[in-house]
Amino acid sequence: MIRTVNLSDVVIQDEFFLHYANLVRKEVLPYQWAALNDAIPGADPSGCIQNFRIAAHRQQGNFVGMVFQDSDLAKWLEAAAYSLTAFFDPELQKQIEACIDLLEQAQGKDGYLNTYFTLKEPENRWKNIRDCHELYCAGHMLEAAVAYYCATGKDRFLQIMCRYVDYIGTVFGKKPGQIQGYPGHEELELALCKLFDVTGESRYLQLAKYFIDERGQQPSFFVKELQTRGDTFHWEGNDTYGLQYFQAHLPVRQQRDAVGHAVRAVYLYSGMADVALRTDDEALRQSCCALAESIMRRQMYVTGAIGSTLHGEAFTFDYDLPSETAYAETCASVGLVFFMKRMLLLEQEARYADVMERALYNTVLAGMGLDGKSFFYANPQCVYPKANEKNPSRWHVKTRRQKWFACACCPPNVARLLADIGEYIYQLQNNSVTVNLFIGSELKGEGFVLRQSSALPYGGNLRLTAEGEAAGQLCLWVRKPYWTTEIRCNQPYTEEKGYLVFAPGAAQGGGIEIEFALPVRRVYGHPLLRDAAGKVAVMRGPLVYCLEQADNGENLHLITLPRDATFAEQPGQGVLRNTMLLTAIGQKEAAGGSLLYSYGQKETLQPWPLTFVPYYTWANRQEGEMTVWVRE
Amino acid sequence: MIRTVNLSDVVIQDEFFLHYANLVRKEVLPYQWAALNDAIPGADPSGCIQNFRIAAHRQQGNFVGMVFQDSDLAKWLEAAAYSLTAFFDPELQKQIEACIDLLEQAQGKDGYLNTYFTLKEPENRWKNIRDCHELYCAGHMLEAAVAYYCATGKDRFLQIMCRYVDYIGTVFGKKPGQIQGYPGHEELELALCKLFDVTGESRYLQLAKYFIDERGQQPSFFVKELQTRGDTFHWEGNDTYGLQYFQAHLPVRQQRDAVGHAVRAVYLYSGMADVALRTDDEALRQSCCALAESIMRRQMYVTGAIGSTLHGEAFTFDYDLPSETAYAETCASVGLVFFMKRMLLLEQEARYADVMERALYNTVLAGMGLDGKSFFYANPQCVYPKANEKNPSRWHVKTRRQKWFACACCPPNVARLLADIGEYIYQLQNNSVTVNLFIGSELKGEGFVLRQSSALPYGGNLRLTAEGEAAGQLCLWVRKPYWTTEIRCNQPYTEEKGYLVFAPGAAQGGGIEIEFALPVRRVYGHPLLRDAAGKVAVMRGPLVYCLEQADNGENLHLITLPRDATFAEQPGQGVLRNTMLLTAIGQKEAAGGSLLYSYGQKETLQPWPLTFVPYYTWANRQEGEMTVWVRE
Repeated sequence: MIRTVNLSDVVIQDEFFLHYANLVRKEVLPYQWAALNDAIPGADPSGCIQNFRIAAHRQQGNFVGMVFQDSDLAKWLEAAAYSLTAFFDPELQKQIEACIDLLEQAQGKDGYLNTYFTLKEPENRWKNIRDCHELYCAGHMLEAAVAYYCATGKDRFLQIMCRYVDYIGTVFGKKPGQIQGYPGHEELELALCKLFDVTGESRYLQLAKYFIDERGQQPSFFVKELQTRGDTFHWEGNDTYGLQYFQAHLPVRQQRDAVGHAVRAVYLYSGMADVALRTDDEALRQSCCALAESIMRRQMYVTGAIGSTLHGEAFTFDYDLPSETAYAETCASVGLVFFMKRMLLLEQEARYADVMERALYNTVLAGMGLDGKSFFYANPQCVYPKANEKNPSRWHVKTRRQKWFACACCPPNVARLLADIGEYIYQLQNNSVTVNLFIGSELKGEGFVLRQSSALPYGGNLRLTAEGEAAGQLCLWVRKPYWTTEIRCNQPYTEEKGYLVFAPGAAQGGGIEIEFALPVRRVYGHPLLRDAAGKVAVMRGPLVYCLEQADNGENLHLITLPRDATFAEQPGQGVLRNTMLLTAIGQKEAAGGSLLYSYGQKETLQPWPLTFVPYYTWANRQEGEMTVWVRE
Repeated sequence: MIRTVNLSDVVIQDEFFLHYANLVRKEVLPYQWAALNDAIPGADPSGCIQNFRIAAHRQQGNFVGMVFQDSDLAKWLEAAAYSLTAFFDPELQKQIEACIDLLEQAQGKDGYLNTYFTLKEPENRWKNIRDCHELYCAGHMLEAAVAYYCATGKDRFLQIMCRYVDYIGTVFGKKPGQIQGYPGHEELELALCKLFDVTGESRYLQLAKYFIDERGQQPSFFVKELQTRGDTFHWEGNDTYGLQYFQAHLPVRQQRDAVGHAVRAVYLYSGMADVALRTDDEALRQSCCALAESIMRRQMYVTGAIGSTLHGEAFTFDYDLPSETAYAETCASVGLVFFMKRMLLLEQEARYADVMERALYNTVLAGMGLDGKSFFYANPQCVYPKANEKNPSRWHVKTRRQKWFACACCPPNVARLLADIGEYIYQLQNNSVTVNLFIGSELKGEGFVLRQSSALPYGGNLRLTAEGEAAGQLCLWVRKPYWTTEIRCNQPYTEEKGYLVFAPGAAQGGGIEIEFALPVRRVYGHPLLRDAAGKVAVMRGPLVYCLEQADNGENLHLITLPRDATFAEQPGQGVLRNTMLLTAIGQKEAAGGSLLYSYGQKETLQPWPLTFVPYYTWANRQEGEMTVWVRE
C-alpha cells in the first residue's frame, strides 16, 4: 500500500525551502508565540495563552477572543513540533512542555478541553456544534499532539488528547443519550485518522468514519440542533448560510461538487480521503475524486487559491473566479495541499501533485510576507488599493499584509505547513518512491537513502541519487510537471499516471539527472472564466507571476501584453533578491482626458517596459496595484 | 429670470412618451394603486393605505411596512396628480380625494401626519431624525399636495400639508426647545421650495434654507442625536455608515464631491440648487456646480446611472464604476434628472440636459418593464444570471424585474417622473424658450404656442413652430445634443452654451426644421474606468445599447466587436416592436475545452452575428445575460 513518509525521515536541504523552514523557526514561531501571549505591540491581542492560564487556575480573568481561539495555540504547537523534528531546540521544547502543563491543568476531569466553554459558557457545552467549533479545536489540538509525539516520542500530550477524544466518543454516537451529530467545522475527522495511525486504536478511525458517515444525513442534525436551541446563532449572519456552507446538504458519498466554506470543504474532503484509504471505501473514494475534479477543473484560481466569495468564505459555482472580489483564503489553499496529498495516496496520479505545488508556491507562500511577520487572509488576483479602501465590496481584500488577525487562523496554518513540508515531497510504495515535489532533501527509507537536489522554483535541474543496500531495487516515480516543455534526462524512463518511471536502481551511482525546460509561458483561462476573458497570465515553472505598481506604474488595467512580446529574465533586487523577475515590452494606454465617455478611437498606446514578479512576493514593497491577469 | 414651465402648459404629443404617459395612466397607476391596497397576488403586501385607514380610525390593526411606507402613497398621489393634468379622469380624482379624506382624518391636531409614528412608535416621534424618514415622508407628501393643487386648483390637500409643515417649523430651528437638525433622508428641502413657489410664503423657503444651512455643521446633529438615544439604530447595519452616507460630513457649501447614498445625494443637491436659485446664494451655487461635475465627469455610468456599491447604496470614488456589482438605483437616476433640471436653471448650459436625457432614456426607462408592471431597483451594466443567483456579492442585482418591492421606492418614482415629463422639456426666460428635451409637445406661453415634433429617440428630425402674437419675438435655444455628428437646419443659428440659438421669430410660419444625424457611435470609457478597459459601448442618439443572451447566445464575455465592424439598423419584433435594433458581425471565442488553465494561444474566433437592443428594453424577454460593455 502506498503511504506517506515520516517527517523525521526527511531532511530538507533545499535553499528555497530551508529559507522558509528557518523563517518559521526564527521568525514565525517566536513572533506567533509573542502574539499568542499578547506581546506584539499594535496587533490585536490574542488572549489565547491567557485563556489556558485562566482555565488552569493560574490566573484570574475572563476569556478573550473567538470561540475557536484555542486552535491558534494548537496550530502553533503543531508547527513547533514539526520544527523541532528538523531543528532540535531545547528552548522551544521547554515552551511546548509548558503549554502541555497548561493543557493538563486546564483539562476537565471528564477529559473536556476547551477554554471558551470552560470559562465563558460552561452551560452551553455541546449545545451548538454547528457554530461553535468545539470539535474543530479538538481536532487541531489532536494534530498538535500527534505531531509532538512523532517529533519527540513523548506521549504526555498525546494522552491528554486521547482522554479528550475518548470522552468525545462517549458524547457523540447513535446510542441513546448521545448526540447524533458531526462537526460544524470539519477538522477532527482527519486528526482522528492521524491518531489512529500512531496508536493503531481502531476506535479512533471508527469515530472519524462515524462523523463522515453522519454528515448530511436526513433529517439534518444541524436543523434539529438549531430548532432545539430556539433558532439562536453564535455568529450574527450565520442564519443566511444554508447547509451547503457546512457541506451538510447531502450525505458525503453523494457529494460531487465542492460547495460552501472553502476551508471547511477541503478539511472535510481530506478526512474523507483519509477514511476511504484506511477502510477501502469505494463510494467515499469516488466522492473524493469527483470533489477534487470540481475544485481542480472548475473552481480554482490560477494561483491555487479557492473560495470565490467573502460571503461564507465560500465556493460559488463553476468557473466563477472573480479577480478583485475573491476570498481565496490562505487557509483554504493550505487545506487544498492537505487534500491533494491524500488524493495522491488514493489515486497516485501526478496531477494532484501539480495542484499541490500550484497552491503551495503561489497562494500559501503569498499568505506570508517575505519577512515572515505579516500575513494575508484573502489573496486576490487583482487589487486597486483605492477600491479596497473605498468600495465596501472590496473591504475584505487587504493590500498590505497584517500583523496578526483577530481571527488568526491563517498565520499558524502557513507555519505548520511549511514546517511540515518534508511530508509532502515523497510517497512510498513497496520498493518505489514517488517524487511529488522538487525540493532538495534527503529521504531515509528502509535500506536506502535517497537524495534529491533541485534548483526549483527558479531552475529546472534535478538530481536524484540513492545509496544503501536496497538502492538497487529502488524504483523512482518522478512527477512530470505540467509546466515544462522539454525534459532532458541521463536515463531512460517510461511514463505512467503523469510520472517518469525509472528502472530499479537507476538512482544508484551517478543517479538520475533531469533538466526540465523552464520557459516563460502564457496561461489562458477556460473560456467560461469571465474575469480572464481577453487576458493572459504569466508563469515560469510552478510560479505564477504578476504585475505590481512598484515596477509598472499605476493603472495596471491600461497595460496590454502584445501577443508577440518576448520575456527576459532578470534577478530581483532588494527585498526581492533571490527571486527571478521577468521583463517584457508591453503597451500602455495614456490615462489622461477629462471626458468620462467619449466617442471614437481614443487610445494612444505607447510602449511600456513591464516587470513581472512572482505572485508569492507581491505586496512586499510599497502598497500599490497588482494584477495577475493582463490584457493581451 | 429663467424659470420652469407649468405642467399644465405642456401637452405631450410625442409617440414615444405618450406611450409612457398612457402606460402610467392605464397600467402603472392602477397597478400601484392595487399594490398600495395589498391587492396584487404574489407581491409583498404594502400595507400603505391600510396604515392610513388605521390612523384615520376607520379600521383596527397594526402598522405594516417600513418606516417610510407613507411615501409610497405620496409618490403615487404625485404621479396621479400629474396624470390628471394631462388626462382628466373623474375616477382617478375620486381615488385621490378619498386619500385626502384619509390624510385629513389621520392628521394629528398639531398637524403631525405620519402613520408609522402615529401607530407604531408614538413615543419616538422626532427622536431619530437620522434614520426614520419622518421629514422625508413629509417632503414627498408635500410634493404630492403641490402637484394636486397645480393640477386641480383644489387646496384641501395643500392646506393639510401647510398645517404639517407649519408644525414642523415649530419643531425644528435654533430657538430654545427646538431641534437644531435636518432630515436624515433629504427630500423636504426641495418640496418646501415648491410650496414656496405656489404659496409665495417665504417661511417655507426659509425652512428649506435652514435645513440646507444646518446640514454638516459641527458639532454634528446626527452624532449628538445618536448619543442622546443611546447609540441605537433603526436599521441594523446603519452603524457602519459614516456621516458621508447622509452628506452630513461637511457644511454643504464646502462639499465638492458627490458622496454617500446616491438618492439622498441628488435629492439634497436638488434642494440646494432650489434654494440657491431663490436666494441668489453664490456659495451654494458653486457647490451645486462642483457636485454636478463630480457626478457627470467622474461617477456616472454610461447609462446615466449612479451609485457604485450596494453598501449604503452609495457613490464610492472617482471612476469606480463596476459593471456587475453596480447598485445604480432607478430612484437615483430619477433624482439625477431632478438635479439636472435645476442645474439648467442655475447655469443654462446644455450639458446638464445631456445628462438629464442620458439618465431618462436609459436608466429611468430601464427601471420599468415595457408592460409597466415590473420594476428594477438596481440597474447593472452586465449580468450573468448564474452569478446573480449563486455569488452573494451579486444578489442585490436582479435579472428579472420584480412586481413590487417590500421597499417600493422605485416604481412610483418612475411613474411620477414620466407623468411629469412635460415639465422637463422647456425652460422659459423673458422672450426665450430653451428646448432641452426633444419630445413632441405643445407649449402654451404668454402670447405664443410653441409646437415641437420630434422623431427621437429613433429618428433625428425635429420641427419647431410658433404661433401667436408673441411668436415674432420668440427666441429659441435648442440643445445641440452631444450624440449627433451633423446638423442640418433650414434656418441660420449661432451657438452658445451648448445651444443652437435662433433669431427671434425664426419659429414662425414654416418654423425651424432640424435634422440631427443619428449614426451608431462607439463609446469609450475614461481610461480610469477600469471595467471599460479594452471595451466599447454602443450608442445611437441618446440610447445606450446592450447585448442580450436572447439574441446573441450565452457567454457574452466571449464576444468581441471588431474595430471595423459596421452597424445596420433593424426594426424590433414582438415585445421590442417600435424599437430599433442594431446588428453587426462580431466574433466569438469557442466556449469548449476541459482545462481550467492552458498554455498557448487557445482562441478559435468565429464570426458571430450580433444584435444590440436599447438598454432600456433589456430583460423584457427570457432571463439571460446582458452586457453594455463589449470587448473590442
